[in-house]
Amino acid sequence: MKKKAAILGASGYTGSDLIRLLLIHPEVEVIHATAEKHVGKSISDVLPYLRGFLDLELKPLDVELIPDEVDIVFTALPHGKSAGVVKELVGKGKRVIDLGADFRLSHQTYREWYGDHPCPELISRAVYGITELFRTEISEAQLVANPGCYPTSAILGLAPLLKYGFIEERQIIVDSKSGVSGAGRSLELAYHFCEVNEGVRAYKVGEHRHTPEIEEVLSRYCGLSVRVSFTPHLIPMDRGILSTIYVKLKEVVSSAELIALYREFYADSFFIRIVPESVYPSTADVRGSNFCDIGVKVNKRDGTAVIISVIDNLVKGASGQAIQNMNLMLGFDESLGLTMPPVFP
Amino acid sequence: MKKKAAILGASGYTGSDLIRLLLIHPEVEVIHATAEKHVGKSISDVLPYLRGFLDLELKPLDVELIPDEVDIVFTALPHGKSAGVVKELVGKGKRVIDLGADFRLSHQTYREWYGDHPCPELISRAVYGITELFRTEISEAQLVANPGCYPTSAILGLAPLLKYGFIEERQIIVDSKSGVSGAGRSLELAYHFCEVNEGVRAYKVGEHRHTPEIEEVLSRYCGLSVRVSFTPHLIPMDRGILSTIYVKLKEVVSSAELIALYREFYADSFFIRIVPESVYPSTADVRGSNFCDIGVKVNKRDGTAVIISVIDNLVKGASGQAIQNMNLMLGFDESLGLTMPPVFP
Amino acid sequence: MKKKAAILGASGYTGSDLIRLLLIHPEVEVIHATAEKHVGKSISDVLPYLRGFLDLELKPLDVELIPDEVDIVFTALPHGKSAGVVKELVGKGKRVIDLGADFRLSHQTYREWYGDHPCPELISRAVYGITELFRTEISEAQLVANPGCYPTSAILGLAPLLKYGFIEERQIIVDSKSGVSGAGRSLELAYHFCEVNEGVRAYKVGEHRHTPEIEEVLSRYCGLSVRVSFTPHLIPMDRGILSTIYVKLKEVVSSAELIALYREFYADSFFIRIVPESVYPSTADVRGSNFCDIGVKVNKRDGTAVIISVIDNLVKGASGQAIQNMNLMLGFDESLGLTMPPVFP
Amino acid sequence: MKKKAAILGASGYTGSDLIRLLLIHPEVEVIHATAEKHVGKSISDVLPYLRGFLDLELKPLDVELIPDEVDIVFTALPHGKSAGVVKELVGKGKRVIDLGADFRLSHQTYREWYGDHPCPELISRAVYGITELFRTEISEAQLVANPGCYPTSAILGLAPLLKYGFIEERQIIVDSKSGVSGAGRSLELAYHFCEVNEGVRAYKVGEHRHTPEIEEVLSRYCGLSVRVSFTPHLIPMDRGILSTIYVKLKEVVSSAELIALYREFYADSFFIRIVPESVYPSTADVRGSNFCDIGVKVNKRDGTAVIISVIDNLVKGASGQAIQNMNLMLGFDESLGLTMPPVFP
Repeated sequence: MKKKAAILGASGYTGSDLIRLLLIHPEVEVIHATAEKHVGKSISDVLPYLRGFLDLELKPLDVELIPDEVDIVFTALPHGKSAGVVKELVGKGKRVIDLGADFRLSHQTYREWYGDHPCPELISRAVYGITELFRTEISEAQLVANPGCYPTSAILGLAPLLKYGFIEERQIIVDSKSGVSGAGRSLELAYHFCEVNEGVRAYKVGEHRHTPEIEEVLSRYCGLSVRVSFTPHLIPMDRGILSTIYVKLKEVVSSAELIALYREFYADSFFIRIVPESVYPSTADVRGSNFCDIGVKVNKRDGTAVIISVIDNLVKGASGQAIQNMNLMLGFDESLGLTMPPVFP
Repeated sequence: MKKKAAILGASGYTGSDLIRLLLIHPEVEVIHATAEKHVGKSISDVLPYLRGFLDLELKPLDVELIPDEVDIVFTALPHGKSAGVVKELVGKGKRVIDLGADFRLSHQTYREWYGDHPCPELISRAVYGITELFRTEISEAQLVANPGCYPTSAILGLAPLLKYGFIEERQIIVDSKSGVSGAGRSLELAYHFCEVNEGVRAYKVGEHRHTPEIEEVLSRYCGLSVRVSFTPHLIPMDRGILSTIYVKLKEVVSSAELIALYREFYADSFFIRIVPESVYPSTADVRGSNFCDIGVKVNKRDGTAVIISVIDNLVKGASGQAIQNMNLMLGFDESLGLTMPPVFP
Repeated sequence: MKKKAAILGASGYTGSDLIRLLLIHPEVEVIHATAEKHVGKSISDVLPYLRGFLDLELKPLDVELIPDEVDIVFTALPHGKSAGVVKELVGKGKRVIDLGADFRLSHQTYREWYGDHPCPELISRAVYGITELFRTEISEAQLVANPGCYPTSAILGLAPLLKYGFIEERQIIVDSKSGVSGAGRSLELAYHFCEVNEGVRAYKVGEHRHTPEIEEVLSRYCGLSVRVSFTPHLIPMDRGILSTIYVKLKEVVSSAELIALYREFYADSFFIRIVPESVYPSTADVRGSNFCDIGVKVNKRDGTAVIISVIDNLVKGASGQAIQNMNLMLGFDESLGLTMPPVFP
Repeated sequence: MKKKAAILGASGYTGSDLIRLLLIHPEVEVIHATAEKHVGKSISDVLPYLRGFLDLELKPLDVELIPDEVDIVFTALPHGKSAGVVKELVGKGKRVIDLGADFRLSHQTYREWYGDHPCPELISRAVYGITELFRTEISEAQLVANPGCYPTSAILGLAPLLKYGFIEERQIIVDSKSGVSGAGRSLELAYHFCEVNEGVRAYKVGEHRHTPEIEEVLSRYCGLSVRVSFTPHLIPMDRGILSTIYVKLKEVVSSAELIALYREFYADSFFIRIVPESVYPSTADVRGSNFCDIGVKVNKRDGTAVIISVIDNLVKGASGQAIQNMNLMLGFDESLGLTMPPVFP
């Protein structure tokens, strides 16, 4: 019998992609979904691409309404709405994957960047869900804090070099380009078609809250004090993040050597694909899929290296990685239900 | 043991999507692929999204090189290249699904619109592969002529009304809007990004070769002499065709009645989804999938009806329908391996 | 000394393009602009592309605040907000170009499609502003009702054929494809980037309020009782409308003859460009400009003709035509300040 | 009487935008244009947006055919084709603006990055045409080497900080995002709509030939030995380059102080607009225009600054700057004919 999942916040792009991916999953099914703006409607009226797949009625956001038989709860709620709900769920013994930002940072860092935390006592119980780096902890966690989209692309691109001490940990620049779905499905002039289309712009330069997430996770994972300068950009496409990462090498090394290092580091990671030398991945190569493709280039002129890391922000950057984590938590192979190829073009 | 497939012409968008979909298929695998421009390369160098999935070496187009164990051959070759190859394959007893235009028309109509046919004796042995209309013939066919993308959207939208005699069969207008992948992956200035982006244009007005395909198939299926005025347009997106079809009703009927008619007509067709009254489908609702969504509206002011039919041109309009046909030919359920939801956004 | 213009509703796309075009105009300058959501801000904070051009402070919508020296007032207000303001302006003796829908229809038709009119007594004083058809009336008008974007493309495409009696006036189909700026700058999920991008859809099929506008204007102009079946579609681009118009010819005529007819009809109209036979215009050919390019094709198979008409919806479909009308009203050449070429790509 | 211009290579995007902009120019007209692929055709058949503006017949590329009365020649030829033609033109005493790369670098640097130069003796006579930095030299030059698009955005963004010694000159990272028109109008699979759309990718990482152009020009201008790490990216839009520039500050300074510095540095430069603190420019703010908008942000966490510089690659990055240079060469105000606002959206 299939495991049962609930999705709180099912009508946004993250919730929607959770549904899409769980419909493909052979061992888990969605039996409960909420969407405060659409209570009482069928999910397929709100997301017409689901016609014929799922006629689930959307419920209000109320933990009491979640059926007891639910094995795993995904929370894909607007910022600030997660913490309280997650606390209730954990209190009832549910296993939870939170796709919000409330449990990704240490308490101290959270306070610096966000302010007071609604339930600080829960923070230490959350496991950060970059699957490739924290498999054991994730498989045993009751609460997984699913990573942000930008941090996923940056952390996967940087972990091998930092772990093996190849680069200066305080001279890292992450320049990321994101499609618009990363900003969610809510209404803001900035995401109106004509404001985004045929343009590119940076935002929250040096101030984006994903900065401490990248720093803290890499610092903890590598035992260093990592600092990054992070600049996100919005570009006119639906899905995809490309992060161009600039690092200072500690000693001379070739592109080929670094590529070999990455291949070894990720040898057991199905979803990380290291591309050949002189080839650079496009977000189009991973669209709709859980892959992270990485290209590496050493610039001999100045002893720096450039790492290019691409993901689909809604999949590896959100819902796909959440399901990868769910697989570990429920005892499945981490790639179960996620092995379909990208959709190109 | 899985059935074996060969794809002749694997590096274009149609061939590529055949590979993508067969990689998901539980009972069929691709063991042979050709691409004349890329002989000797790995398919995943030519189509990088396939990294890690398939390392098949691309072969030259030579029927002798196709392994004997191949159960089904897909030909996705440029216009005019199919016929000779298909003849050879049929001669060797292979079952073939031809995604080109060579076997879709009667000999006479072919001559009118294309000129001399390279192997007219084979035409009568080909079954036209709109799955929903010709299931029995397809399941028994040795050679299936897979429909064109525009005809698929038009024929599925018109069949119920013509079959039941609701409309004038010689006053039909089909106004279609297509994404650029329908034009293939070859190099032409017209498909350069900057020539297509931020613009829309009509082409081959009243002269497109899909016109006789729509007319002939519907005429045969419905026992009528159908005539359509067909205008294709190119719009700035990758995938998708929306056909807006204008018809003259023979007598007064409501939108609700027509919708009921469509629902009944397609009751056993998983891939045809009839949308509710006053809702119109977007190509975004079917992207990456084999669905055809249809909306219907009666215009009481003038006794006409408008039918809106959307497909993904590369899937239901080409490779997906080819696999649907393959399923029937190989004795599988027609939806096997094709049941994943669309990718939205 | 330059003439003075006021723009009521300056922060939307129509108001914005009025400003852009008036900044180029050699004889008129904007000295007053309103935007209720942004009162007190500089226009260039709300529309950053105007940095360095115009530092006008945005005012509230109050007719009393408009300086006396203003020669012409453009109202680019949300539906329903125009009528009252226009009434006040006309009462004060101002010349007004209303870019809304309130004064485009006869009273009776307005009631059928919109409901009660707020100031019916003014309707008969408004001149409909398709410049090419009503130059004399426009030049003498106090109040011009600037045409809708879809009607502009349809009326210009149909006028020659109807005026000279070449086609059946009650068998006309207008299938229009519009960029997103036509929907305005207000916030609706339907215009969120990810909802529009990579998709095409029809809306308000057979029910769009531009239908009676097309019918009534053409009927009046040609002395006929014209009926059209009109279907608008939204496509993923910023600017542009392409209307594909299907008509029934009364007698046999060639494409070349029709093209000659169009050339003669529009011989004195700088902004109408008739393209050669077998060529069809793209919206990209008119982007940013006041041109309407028209292509014509006779389909001999069934005695119909297809007319393709393209405009930039914000220019010839709104602000450009408004300035063309203003030129006539102020005694300038109608093309003054509008003669820059389109922007391609 | 208007000055006369010739454009060699008129059918590409750069040549096309030269024509567009010169049609607006009040004092210069195009009387001669070449396009080897389209000899004998009218320019408006090759670039239909020009219908009604210019019916110039396209000539073969032959210096002898250029009318004597031509005052200024623009060469917009494929790489490697310029040098020989420019040599002939200079020999005949013509004033030339070369939009290619042949005369932008010193002989030595050219050899390192390109190989042998076809006419090295001419290099020292060429003036590099970043207008804002080299006005005097440009106004007196016979031959201007018009800057590359990426270097324009990078050099304008870096010049004030380097000139005044605020930053480390050998720790500069330039991460640029370009629309597709920058790659030209020639046929390559990489620029097919479906290969570019819905994706972003880096290319020529650390190897792009615009790298030495940025370094050499800034080194010469500032009397330093500047080194940059440059990574270009292709994003799915027609026009625009955004360069995100990361620099190491020599001492602590605020964003406001740097913004003031930029405002002063560019006080006399109409086309450079410095945006307010905490605001970052989008390429959409400059589309179709000759502006370069610059935003600056000091990151106090690590003593770095981020400069965001946006241009329209075809205008300030090519044809617009060429006309700005032409204005100086012909004794006009540098902004003559270039003062129209950007086109938004």
